[in-house]
Amino acid sequence: MEVTRKNYKDCLNTVYSAIEEADFLAIDGEFSGISDGPNASALTNGLDTPEERYTKLKKHSMDFLLFQFGLCTFKYDQTKSKYITKTFNFYIFPKPFNRTSPDIKFICQSSSIDFLASQGFDFNKVFCHGIPYLNQEEEAQLREQTEERRNQHANGVGTPSYISPSSSKGPAHIPEEHKDFINRVVEKVEALFANSEKTLDLEPCTGFQRKLIYQTLNWKFPKGLHVETIETEKKERYIQISKVDEEERKRREQQKLEKEQEELNDAVGFSRVIHAISKSGKLVVGHNMLLDVMHTIHQFYCPLPELLHFVMVFSFLFPLRLLDTKLMASTQPFKELITYTSLAELEKQLKESPFKPPQVETAEGFLSYNTAQEQLHEAGYDAYITGLCFISMANYLGSFLTPPKAYISARSKLIEPFFNKLFLMRIIDIPYLNLTGPDLQPKRDHVLYVTFPKEWKTSDLYQLFSAFGNIQVSWIDDTSAFVSLSQTDQVQIGESGLFCHTRQNLFTTCSLLVKYT
Amino acid sequence: MEVTRKNYKDCLNTVYSAIEEADFLAIDGEFSGISDGPNASALTNGLDTPEERYTKLKKHSMDFLLFQFGLCTFKYDQTKSKYITKTFNFYIFPKPFNRTSPDIKFICQSSSIDFLASQGFDFNKVFCHGIPYLNQEEEAQLREQTEERRNQHANGVGTPSYISPSSSKGPAHIPEEHKDFINRVVEKVEALFANSEKTLDLEPCTGFQRKLIYQTLNWKFPKGLHVETIETEKKERYIQISKVDEEERKRREQQKLEKEQEELNDAVGFSRVIHAISKSGKLVVGHNMLLDVMHTIHQFYCPLPELLHFVMVFSFLFPLRLLDTKLMASTQPFKELITYTSLAELEKQLKESPFKPPQVETAEGFLSYNTAQEQLHEAGYDAYITGLCFISMANYLGSFLTPPKAYISARSKLIEPFFNKLFLMRIIDIPYLNLTGPDLQPKRDHVLYVTFPKEWKTSDLYQLFSAFGNIQVSWIDDTSAFVSLSQTDQVQIGESGLFCHTRQNLFTTCSLLVKYT
Repeated sequence: MEVTRKNYKDCLNTVYSAIEEADFLAIDGEFSGISDGPNASALTNGLDTPEERYTKLKKHSMDFLLFQFGLCTFKYDQTKSKYITKTFNFYIFPKPFNRTSPDIKFICQSSSIDFLASQGFDFNKVFCHGIPYLNQEEEAQLREQTEERRNQHANGVGTPSYISPSSSKGPAHIPEEHKDFINRVVEKVEALFANSEKTLDLEPCTGFQRKLIYQTLNWKFPKGLHVETIETEKKERYIQISKVDEEERKRREQQKLEKEQEELNDAVGFSRVIHAISKSGKLVVGHNMLLDVMHTIHQFYCPLPELLHFVMVFSFLFPLRLLDTKLMASTQPFKELITYTSLAELEKQLKESPFKPPQVETAEGFLSYNTAQEQLHEAGYDAYITGLCFISMANYLGSFLTPPKAYISARSKLIEPFFNKLFLMRIIDIPYLNLTGPDLQPKRDHVLYVTFPKEWKTSDLYQLFSAFGNIQVSWIDDTSAFVSLSQTDQVQIGESGLFCHTRQNLFTTCSLLVKYT
Repeated sequence: MEVTRKNYKDCLNTVYSAIEEADFLAIDGEFSGISDGPNASALTNGLDTPEERYTKLKKHSMDFLLFQFGLCTFKYDQTKSKYITKTFNFYIFPKPFNRTSPDIKFICQSSSIDFLASQGFDFNKVFCHGIPYLNQEEEAQLREQTEERRNQHANGVGTPSYISPSSSKGPAHIPEEHKDFINRVVEKVEALFANSEKTLDLEPCTGFQRKLIYQTLNWKFPKGLHVETIETEKKERYIQISKVDEEERKRREQQKLEKEQEELNDAVGFSRVIHAISKSGKLVVGHNMLLDVMHTIHQFYCPLPELLHFVMVFSFLFPLRLLDTKLMASTQPFKELITYTSLAELEKQLKESPFKPPQVETAEGFLSYNTAQEQLHEAGYDAYITGLCFISMANYLGSFLTPPKAYISARSKLIEPFFNKLFLMRIIDIPYLNLTGPDLQPKRDHVLYVTFPKEWKTSDLYQLFSAFGNIQVSWIDDTSAFVSLSQTDQVQIGESGLFCHTRQNLFTTCSLLVKYT
C-alpha cells in the first residue's frame, strides 16, 4: 500500500491494527544519500571498532533524509500454515507545519539520487506528497506553544514576549497609537450586543493588534462572546466575534481544542507510525539495518548521542527486538551455505535447497509483490523480501530439532541469539554492533599500520608482503592502510625498523611500518 | 520548450541559434533552497554593505542546487514591430559521469521544496532526467584524464600511478603471478595472426591485468593490431583484439577519439549553454538576479571567490551586460510609478498606463505562455515575463525623447545606466551591487546600534524611540538591531550614556546604545 500525505490519515488505523496483530515486522528505509565524508573507504575501514563506525555514520550520514520507509507486517495463519503479509510503502517529507516551525535542511548525494532514479523512484511522491513528521523535542515544543496560546486566550494575558516596557503595566494597557483602533472595535462589539446579528467580522489587522483586541475584549466582556482568529485563503488573518451563551461558548472552545489537537497530530504525522512500532514490542527484522535504525531514531526521536548513550536510548525507546538478516546469513549455520548476502541474492538462495521457500500470502486489499519481477530498492518491497529471508532462515533452524519442525515462530528461543545485533559492513573481525551487551574485542596482534607513497596501490602492498602468505588490506587514506597478516607470529623485528613483531602500542617512525591498533 | 537529458542534445543547436540571433536574453533560476543560515533576518540585514551581503550569500546559499534554468530569447522583428520569443526551460542535475567523477552533494531546504511543490514543480524531471554539467576545473580534469588514457594506450606506458616498485623496471615488466596469464594471451594473439579470424575477445579480467595486456601487446606487436576495452551490459570489462592494417587502425583510433570527445561534451552538458550565453556578449536581463548570477558562476564556472575577485572573474568570464528589472523598477523614473516590484506584480503594472503592454509573439514551434494563466516560478515563464517587464520599461524611457520613440532597442544608450548593477534585497540605502564600478557608500551617521533584552519586539523599539519620529529597525539577532533615525542631528549624548550623538567609531557599553556602523 502506497502511503502519502494524501491518504495517510485514512490508513493509520489499518497500519496500527496490522502492527498489533503481527507476529513480526520487517522494515527498510531509502535515503537521500549515504555519506558526505571524504570517501567510502574512510567511512568503512575494515578495522573500525563498533564505536568508531557508529561515530563515523553519525557524523557523515545523518544529514541525509530518510524519505521512504517500508513496513511489512507478517501474521502467521495456523489454519493455512502461511504468513499473511501487509506491506506499506510510506513517503516522508518534513513539510514545515507553520511559519514558526523548523525549516529542515537535508543533503542529497547525486550518486544515491541517480541510483534511485534508475530504479524508477518517484521523487514527486516524496517532495510533493510526503508525510510530515516531528521528533520528540519538536512535538513537545509545538504542544507547549499550543498550550500557551490557549492559556493566553483564556486569561487575556500576553505571552511573556509581550511583557515589555510597553505592555507591562497591565493586561489591557493599549499603546497610544492603537487606542483609537481598539476603541472602534469596542464600539462595534457594543453595537453587536445591541443588534440582532450573531457575528461580527473585523478587518484584517496585525498580530499585535489582534493581541490587543483579545486582551481588551476578555477584560471588557468576560462573558457572552466567542473571539476567534480566522485565516483567509490569501493568508490574511482577521478576527471574528460571535455572541454566544455560556454553553455555546464552551462548545466552541471544545471544538477549537479538538481541531488544534488534530492539527498537532497531523504535524507529528509519520512519527506516530514509528511510535506504534516501538510500543508494539514486536520483533523487527531488517537487512543490514544499522543505518535504518540510526536514521529512524535521529529523524523521529532525537539527535543521535554517543554510542554508549545510543544503546541506552535504544533500550529505553524500543522495548522491542531487532534482528538483522544480513548478520543472520553471515553467521553459523548459514555462513557455510550462503555465498552472497546482498538482499536480492540472499532471497534467491533461500528459495533453494537446503532451504524452503517461505509460505506467504498477501492480505486482502493489499497489493501483492511478485518476487520474480524484482522491485528492489522500493522500501516496501525490500521490507517484504527481508521478511521472507527471515522466515526461510528461521524455519531452517527448525530442521535441527528432534523431531524437526517445519515452522519456527518469531517467538522461538532458536532465534534469540540473533537479537539486537546489527551487522557491521566490511569489518574484518567484528561482525556486529551489540545493542544489549558488550561489543566483541578481537585480538589484533597481527595487524600492521603501514604508510607509503601515495602512488601505491593494493597490488604494491601484496607484492611487499608476498613472503607472508595471504594478507588483508584495509585502506585508511591515500598514504596509509592496515595490513592484517594471516599468522601472528610470522613477523620479525629488524634493526632497520622495517619489519617488527607486532605488539600493543608499538609504534615506529620508519617509512613503512608499524603501529598496533 | 522543456529541455531534459533526454532531448537536450537535439535542442542544443536550436538554443545556440536562438542566442545568436537574439537582441537580448532573459534568464531565471530555481534553487533547492535559499539559506542554510540561522534565519532570514541575519542573512539580509537592512544595513549590510554590498560586500557583507555577498559574503553571506556565498556562505549560506551556494550549497543549494540551481536545478531549473529558464532562458527566454527576444529577437526584434522590424516588419512586425514585435519581439519574437523563444523560451527554454532546462532541468539540471549533477548526474555523476563515471565512477571517478565528483559525487556532488547539495542541500534541500524543506520550505523551498514545499513552495515549489505547491507550484506544481516536477521533481522527477530534475532528479531522473536533469541535464548534467561540469564546472571549468572538472571539465579540465576530465579532459586531462582522457588525454592521459590516450597517451597511455598509444605508448604502452603505464600511468604514473603504476610506476611503483612492482612495475618500475620497464614498460613490459610482468609480476610473477601474472606471467602465465599474459603468456596465454600472447599465444592467443599469435594464433589470431595465423588464422582467418578478424577479432579475438578475451575473458573479462582486472584493470591491472588489462594494463599488462596493453603494455605487452604494444611492445610485442607494435603494428597490425587494434586493442580495445569493451564494457558488457553487466558492467564487466573485457579486451577485444582485432587484426587491422595501418589505415584501419588509424580509422579506429579516430573513431574512438570522436566517441571520447562526444562523451566529454555530454559530461560538460548544460555548462555549454551557459558558455554560449557568456560568449554571446548579449544583454542578459533578470529579476532580482544576484543569486541567479552567483549560482550560475558557482555551479558552471568555479567556486565563488571574495567579492573583489568575483567582480574581476565576472568581467573576465562575461563580456556581457546584465540588467536587473527589479533594480530598474525601483529607480527613477519608475520608482514613483510602480508600487510593488515583485515579478508578478510588476508585470501586471507594466501593462497599464503610463506603460504599454509589450508587443511579443512566440516563435513557431515554441510553446506560448499566456500571462493571464500565471505559471510563476517555472524558470522559463519567469524569464519570459522578466523580458516583458524590461521591454515595457525600456520603451517607456523612449517617451522622454523628442520626438518620443515607441520602441527602444536593447542597444540604446537610454538603458546603459542600469547595466551591471544587481538589486540588493532589503538594504535601506544601497540599492545595488555594482559589477563594473565602485559601490555606493552612503552616510550612516543616523544609524544606532542597539542592544536589549531578548524579549523585546520591534514595537518596543518604536516605543523607546517614539520621541524621534519615524525610525527604521534592522534586526541583527535576538538582542541587537540597527535603528535608523529619520534625522541625523536629533540625538543627544546624555552623561548616562543612554543617548548619544552618533559619530564614527563611537561605541558605548551601556545596555541600550550606540555604535556607528
